[in-house]
Amino acid sequence: MRQVEIGFLGFGNIGEGVWRLLEEMRGETARREGISFEVRRVLVRDVHRQRGVEVPQGVLTDRPEDVLDDPDVQIVMEFMGGEQPAADYIERALLAGKSVVTANKMALSTHWARLNAAAQRGGAGLYFEASVCGAIPVIRAMTDSLQANRVERLMGIINGTTNYILTRMTREGSRFEDVLQDAQRLGLAEPDPTADVEGYDAAYKLSILASLAFYTHVPVESVYREGITRVSPIDIACGQEMGLTLKLLAVAKRNGDAVEARVHPTFVPSTHPLANVSDAFNAVFLRGHACGELMFYGRGAGDMPTASALVSDLIKAAGAQRHALPAFFDAADGVHIEEDWSSVYFIRTRATDKPGVLAHVAGCMAGHGVGIASMVQKGAPDADGRVQIVFVTHRAHEQAVMSALEEVNRSGRTRVESVIRVEGVE
Amino acid sequence: MRQVEIGFLGFGNIGEGVWRLLEEMRGETARREGISFEVRRVLVRDVHRQRGVEVPQGVLTDRPEDVLDDPDVQIVMEFMGGEQPAADYIERALLAGKSVVTANKMALSTHWARLNAAAQRGGAGLYFEASVCGAIPVIRAMTDSLQANRVERLMGIINGTTNYILTRMTREGSRFEDVLQDAQRLGLAEPDPTADVEGYDAAYKLSILASLAFYTHVPVESVYREGITRVSPIDIACGQEMGLTLKLLAVAKRNGDAVEARVHPTFVPSTHPLANVSDAFNAVFLRGHACGELMFYGRGAGDMPTASALVSDLIKAAGAQRHALPAFFDAADGVHIEEDWSSVYFIRTRATDKPGVLAHVAGCMAGHGVGIASMVQKGAPDADGRVQIVFVTHRAHEQAVMSALEEVNRSGRTRVESVIRVEGVE
Repeated sequence: MRQVEIGFLGFGNIGEGVWRLLEEMRGETARREGISFEVRRVLVRDVHRQRGVEVPQGVLTDRPEDVLDDPDVQIVMEFMGGEQPAADYIERALLAGKSVVTANKMALSTHWARLNAAAQRGGAGLYFEASVCGAIPVIRAMTDSLQANRVERLMGIINGTTNYILTRMTREGSRFEDVLQDAQRLGLAEPDPTADVEGYDAAYKLSILASLAFYTHVPVESVYREGITRVSPIDIACGQEMGLTLKLLAVAKRNGDAVEARVHPTFVPSTHPLANVSDAFNAVFLRGHACGELMFYGRGAGDMPTASALVSDLIKAAGAQRHALPAFFDAADGVHIEEDWSSVYFIRTRATDKPGVLAHVAGCMAGHGVGIASMVQKGAPDADGRVQIVFVTHRAHEQAVMSALEEVNRSGRTRVESVIRVEGVE
Repeated sequence: MRQVEIGFLGFGNIGEGVWRLLEEMRGETARREGISFEVRRVLVRDVHRQRGVEVPQGVLTDRPEDVLDDPDVQIVMEFMGGEQPAADYIERALLAGKSVVTANKMALSTHWARLNAAAQRGGAGLYFEASVCGAIPVIRAMTDSLQANRVERLMGIINGTTNYILTRMTREGSRFEDVLQDAQRLGLAEPDPTADVEGYDAAYKLSILASLAFYTHVPVESVYREGITRVSPIDIACGQEMGLTLKLLAVAKRNGDAVEARVHPTFVPSTHPLANVSDAFNAVFLRGHACGELMFYGRGAGDMPTASALVSDLIKAAGAQRHALPAFFDAADGVHIEEDWSSVYFIRTRATDKPGVLAHVAGCMAGHGVGIASMVQKGAPDADGRVQIVFVTHRAHEQAVMSALEEVNRSGRTRVESVIRVEGVE
């Protein structure tokens, strides 16, 4: 039996989940892996606070060096969250030759190059399955199962809070603000929900996923980002009638040397596997040139699902003879970030008279080379006699569509109320 | 650059797919893994047959020893299929210290103990991601991502041919025989479809999956098996009206020391993630005590999806410092195969008069402790005045239900026309 000493950085819900899981699986881990894990030190803010698990005397500490500089700590598990000081601590551990297991998407996607260099310098491993989609082994899929593939595209529901909100808005026809309040009451959304509802959380995760999928660094700043705060029940309902379901999608595509990465509200056909991913569940759908379509589905958050990924990484780190770092950079790299991507567009307008708006919108679009695939009028004219008309375009370039819509708005008689990209339709 | 010499056993569609994929990915494999694979010898039945890829002179051979006894062949890839002689060849290669990458579910599930022993004796690795669900990395998920979980249940659509047939029967209301003929014309079913439609293929795969999931050997002979040849469009339609979708499901559960494993037509709620897995796609859904629900979805067959898994295994085998064999057996094992499992049952009967059949069926069921959850009459009485009545039970034990139904049939006035298990409803 090999004893492996570990240190924790942070001890919130996730850290306690890992503690519990290590205890529960102690017998199995010994029998199957021949390893006994001992948590030597745990860095906390307040050593006197009551904890949900029983921790022996002398394990809790509020001094980072007790974990980072202890020569007996072989593996460091980080679940403090946030960019700093987590990133600095991770780097220090790696440089000291301690492998690090982390769930920290922000530290990773922001400081990848530095952390990667530190791991190589220290001869240590950096494991981060838990940083994206909780229990779903999507990092391992990229690094260990799809090596013989050129991944062409990837679409994911990688934020549980927004998926919960959109699922309820779709089922109930309710407004964003109302469901958000409910989600906050239920603990499914933070008191300050910005990171989730504005798509920041998903953008960090997409930066990691796309970098692994395309073997090239896709920095988080290059991810186009649009949240769900302006999504209206009217759009969701219009989409449903047209066989489309609204999701906050993280989309990344590689076409030759051009890579695009974006997070925004997106319609997918209601028959698409992603359309049926409901509530707080996550899923990543991808297509590789050899494997074809794959989807991974599961619980993207929560203490035990996240602990499942963290302990799996811990076992991997403890058993590795040599730490293989995922190749975020491809030696023969020449890729650039594509900002003028192409998509299909759902456009909802409101205008004073129908024959006029049709001619006007069609004209503006045609002027920018954007074709219209279908058009429907929604409901009866409102009190002011204005009608609502929804257009769906053929595949077109983002910039052409945006220029065309500016022109539509300029007339004053027709107002563009929403523009939602449609994926999964080609 | 490290050169790794490999040998092929078999060279059908899958073998040619692997050859093509190795060629396509040559540059990436060199850059990312630092490995150059050379196919040294390929065992075929007929060295003169025209091939779909260009093979240099002297590579093809019809003598197995040219692959198995060549000291320069480091890794053997097997895609002959069938139990023998494949199992013997795999064993010989392993004993000679050559790692083996195989897609052969039959050889593996039938000869696991022998092959495992040979790998250990030879210090070689045995890799078989491609043996279950083609490109879907479900083996890797079990061995490399779920180590910190007690898997409680697993339900899979793991045969593409039968899923294609059931999907079309559901969509079109057509009969099994008609869709089967179509599938055969399209090359989606074999001229002799027995292995697929009678559930043998799925039983082999379930034996492997359940063994890995539960860390205990679940022999293929212990898998209860029932095919789809007697599935009728009437049952599918009745189920649909009740919000149920019919699938050929591979089900395995572990409850303490009791393990059950079975392959049979099964209703799942139409809202269940598995219900939307259509056509020839495969999916494995599972629940672990820490990870919660997970699903893996993708292409379970085809030359390139299978090659994707095989080449991934090849890269893993070539890079391994030490070959970790999946622990099929848990040291502290005490499990037994449960044959009297519990389920919910859909029962379709035909009887001469409705009030009579209700009392009769309810009475027989109650006598065996089986509760009825709902009952509906389907359609109008037929020409002979018989009505069709569908019952759905509460969760009950298989043997109790079967005994009750024997009693129902014994009366002569009520005939049980189908019994279909319902899963995913608790």
